Amino acid sequence: MGVSSLSSIPWNGKSFVDDKTPKVNGQRIESRILELAKFGRDENGHGYRMAFTKGDMEGRAWFMDLMKKAGLETRNDEAGNILGKRKGKNPSLKPIAFGSHIDMVPDGGNYDGTLGSLSALEVIEVLNENKMVTNHPLEVIIFADEEGSMIGSKAIASQISAEILKQVSHSGLTIAEGVKAIGGNPNNIQNCIRKKGDIHAFLELHIEQGGNLEKENLQIGVVEGIVGIDHWEVTVEGFANHAGTTPMDLRQDALLAASKLIIAVNEVINSVKGNHVGTIGKVAAFPGAYNVIPGKVTLGLEIRDLSSDKIEFLFREIEKRAAAIASDSKTKISFVHPPSVSKPALTDKALQQIINTSAQSLGFTTKFMQSGAGHDSQNISMIAPVAMIFVPSVGGISHSPKEFTKTVDMTNGANVLLQTLLTVDKE
Amino acid sequence: MGVSSLSSIPWNGKSFVDDKTPKVNGQRIESRILELAKFGRDENGHGYRMAFTKGDMEGRAWFMDLMKKAGLETRNDEAGNILGKRKGKNPSLKPIAFGSHIDMVPDGGNYDGTLGSLSALEVIEVLNENKMVTNHPLEVIIFADEEGSMIGSKAIASQISAEILKQVSHSGLTIAEGVKAIGGNPNNIQNCIRKKGDIHAFLELHIEQGGNLEKENLQIGVVEGIVGIDHWEVTVEGFANHAGTTPMDLRQDALLAASKLIIAVNEVINSVKGNHVGTIGKVAAFPGAYNVIPGKVTLGLEIRDLSSDKIEFLFREIEKRAAAIASDSKTKISFVHPPSVSKPALTDKALQQIINTSAQSLGFTTKFMQSGAGHDSQNISMIAPVAMIFVPSVGGISHSPKEFTKTVDMTNGANVLLQTLLTVDKE
Repeated sequence: MGVSSLSSIPWNGKSFVDDKTPKVNGQRIESRILELAKFGRDENGHGYRMAFTKGDMEGRAWFMDLMKKAGLETRNDEAGNILGKRKGKNPSLKPIAFGSHIDMVPDGGNYDGTLGSLSALEVIEVLNENKMVTNHPLEVIIFADEEGSMIGSKAIASQISAEILKQVSHSGLTIAEGVKAIGGNPNNIQNCIRKKGDIHAFLELHIEQGGNLEKENLQIGVVEGIVGIDHWEVTVEGFANHAGTTPMDLRQDALLAASKLIIAVNEVINSVKGNHVGTIGKVAAFPGAYNVIPGKVTLGLEIRDLSSDKIEFLFREIEKRAAAIASDSKTKISFVHPPSVSKPALTDKALQQIINTSAQSLGFTTKFMQSGAGHDSQNISMIAPVAMIFVPSVGGISHSPKEFTKTVDMTNGANVLLQTLLTVDKE
Repeated sequence: MGVSSLSSIPWNGKSFVDDKTPKVNGQRIESRILELAKFGRDENGHGYRMAFTKGDMEGRAWFMDLMKKAGLETRNDEAGNILGKRKGKNPSLKPIAFGSHIDMVPDGGNYDGTLGSLSALEVIEVLNENKMVTNHPLEVIIFADEEGSMIGSKAIASQISAEILKQVSHSGLTIAEGVKAIGGNPNNIQNCIRKKGDIHAFLELHIEQGGNLEKENLQIGVVEGIVGIDHWEVTVEGFANHAGTTPMDLRQDALLAASKLIIAVNEVINSVKGNHVGTIGKVAAFPGAYNVIPGKVTLGLEIRDLSSDKIEFLFREIEKRAAAIASDSKTKISFVHPPSVSKPALTDKALQQIINTSAQSLGFTTKFMQSGAGHDSQNISMIAPVAMIFVPSVGGISHSPKEFTKTVDMTNGANVLLQTLLTVDKE
């Protein structure tokens, strides 16, 4: 899905970084991340800054204030994205955009989204401090509700349906109500659409949220693409019966069959080489009592990969295993496949190379890798060349209060973001 | 736990049944069961006559009215049991009691409990019609809340704790509130306690609720005992993490480990000969989302058998398998074992023989078997000799709207109940 208009940028590979190159203030990034973390925090210190909640609104106001203080022309668009513009030398050039999000999952961590957001602001501060003006205009984008509907990036990429606005968010508000609450205008949401070519390039720095960089002791991940995500609602139908009076050989136990399927899914995923992942994260047994053999079990199956064909192949293998399990256990196993949560989105190859060379020029070790998590970049990839920079997550932990990234890694990532932006601007 | 005071009854084994022996009116039993089924029925025809609900109260009023019309001296005791007394020739003899319950599980069937209740009433009607007076006084007992707390039979057997009265029943009322609502007096519940020797014998006719009699094409089950029931709350602890960014080899998936345990439980139960059963009927995964690897799973394990030692043995085998699974999957598996739901309760051997010979004398095929389900008889066995008569359940289905027992089988069972009672009375 990458719009590779930058693929034609020539890149000579030689180092452009010297001691005079500006550097970010990592301490400032970290202290601002921890300040932002106070919004939406509960009495136990856990974070609940879900989109459209009080904490989200307070965080957004705090963030917009900082953007204004940094001289950005700041506003909400109709989808509730926070936009901050900085003029370039050449007003005829299209803006280079960069940013991330500041909303979080319930009981989430402090770094997911906030690192990319506050590093984008840091890049602006460094340019200001160094009195540098880029050729291209710059635009910081803080997307609305990344962790829920991705409404902000979807609106920019013209991916909004009427249904999405009616969905209920973690805040309890519908997406439409939530967008309105944070200063957007859901009735005119089409006004924030950008066409192909409106954005020169979009860059997003993010924590990896996995354990690959840490495991291999590497500093910077160059993201090749964001995996596609497919969900299946699985139903296993047996026969509910009295757990005391039904002999073992007369049972049609839906939970026993479901357990075999959960193991089979794991076996199929592990049987094929690659970076794909497959998970059963949801399970419910009905009626769900100690003394009743489960008559029905529902499962939630998710498969992610950079290739839709591979996702399809893995599912077909799982389907074959399910048919055998159903037959052996006298149950019925069915799969409902809603539209893909997201299609695989490839990042721009020329931007990947600029990130890699920028990182190496700064002395960092790098790895080309996929993003297993969804990001706003995947939507923006439909209308602009995008790239993502990953930095290590300690223990690979994310979407958890234990999520953590070291200051040095955050600083490295923000410096790569700054250097990449300057290089893209020069080309 | 059987109090085998009747074990000394001599039994010569010769047939005592001839054409002059009174017989029940099976059509009357069936039509009354279907009339009772109207109470608590919803607009879709499903039954919700749970204890202490409006349907239960209406059914009880209807039943008490029939008992009074049959000449029984009828009253509620303090636990809400409906008692109906009929005088015998010898007032110094202790009563022969018989009955069952008329409350049901949510969305339950029409025969569980009601067959034994309406057959008890039928026995009284037949005695009235034949102008027969037994030596012993007779007492019909319709126990309160069998399907929930078994409060009625527990109260009679002095098995009530203060906690049980505070539990919330299916009706939404606490057991104490419910008992009060049906005419009991929870503050004086100790007044309904019967001592050992107060009841000469207790007989309960019931549907099998399993498929054994039907499978073997047999007419009458002679119950040897009611299985003990033990529950374990199982917790599998892994580590919740992002389902997109956590590689397959770095996961500690609690649901995958739980699935292996569910299969292991089934294997352990099936590996040992006998009539024991083991079930995982409950499962919950946390946090329970498509995109999060389950970090914690809770399961509900139940094992039933006539021998507490065997239950213990089977659990120890399961525990061993769990330790191996936990070790292999880097999870922690723990078991919490609340006090037994019920201890195994043996029926009286002399009564078993009387039932068997009564049934054979009437021309019926019989089988000695266990009850996999709990029954009020298990509580009464602590203070009196008890016996249970089973008749076939079509398809072995129970606790379901599909629960069904044929009229001929109900009639056979009620005739065996009548014949057994007359024999016990004569001995």
